[in-house]
Amino acid sequence: MIDELLEANERFADSYEGGELEMAPRRRLAVLTCMDARLAPERFLDLVLGEAHVIRNAGGRASDDALRSLVVSTRLLRTREVVVIHHTDCGMMSFDSEEFQQVLREETGADAAGIDFLGFSDLDDSVREDVERITTCTYMDEGISVSGLVYDVATGRLREVDAG
Amino acid sequence: MIDELLEANERFADSYEGGELEMAPRRRLAVLTCMDARLAPERFLDLVLGEAHVIRNAGGRASDDALRSLVVSTRLLRTREVVVIHHTDCGMMSFDSEEFQQVLREETGADAAGIDFLGFSDLDDSVREDVERITTCTYMDEGISVSGLVYDVATGRLREVDAG
Repeated sequence: MIDELLEANERFADSYEGGELEMAPRRRLAVLTCMDARLAPERFLDLVLGEAHVIRNAGGRASDDALRSLVVSTRLLRTREVVVIHHTDCGMMSFDSEEFQQVLREETGADAAGIDFLGFSDLDDSVREDVERITTCTYMDEGISVSGLVYDVATGRLREVDAG
Repeated sequence: MIDELLEANERFADSYEGGELEMAPRRRLAVLTCMDARLAPERFLDLVLGEAHVIRNAGGRASDDALRSLVVSTRLLRTREVVVIHHTDCGMMSFDSEEFQQVLREETGADAAGIDFLGFSDLDDSVREDVERITTCTYMDEGISVSGLVYDVATGRLREVDAG
């Protein structure tokens, strides 16, 4: 697999034109979304190379680590706007933490009871919860705007989540 | 900004053809890399929609949250290969955690001394460290292959990091 990826990268690098881009995102934007393979945030938001930070994890959740990244993004690299995007048919939505911990216990013998896998049951609520978590994070600048969207994997379309 | 992003998304959705994709990544691959705005992993690896999970945070570090995502990716959605990609000119490389904690104290009044921002000083070492952290994670299947790469933002080129 690595060889295939390196070959594909050769072709990319042959026509690469991003060598002069600056580290700080040009549109001063940070996107937090899910790792899901059906999501390509740069494409569905039409982002050009160098424009935005993209943070991704299982569910697109505002985990402690996502907050670490967002604090670095906003304080150190001067982004001013954060967009949280969860999506339909997310694996973390149908997710039962206790059931999964049981599977891990059986498959690995290790106790995963201490891990919160950050599953959720309502899409709009999970977006609102994470927008709230970022907005109220002690280390975030109050001037940062945080909004929430839902991406529909069936249509490729985004919709805004109201503050509720 | 949100209006601009939603407009751009309208154009994307008008020609979207991913509606039938399955949740499980087709190439059974998970990529862990940095949030940096100059990185577009789907492009530099030539990934097609639906092929791979993409996990991103400040530095592309194997944080606890990245491990949470990788456990979900490998156990629940059957990926079999993990690629860790750090990059040249990373903001987390020149990063001084204590200095940044001091800035946060001054700007917010809150004590960030408890937060490890996961900065690093040597690129190859940080890749090796994270490959090791994933490989030895209790909840990962031993059959998962984990490799490490470095992406050069000046050239768009990847190189392998040897196990050391």
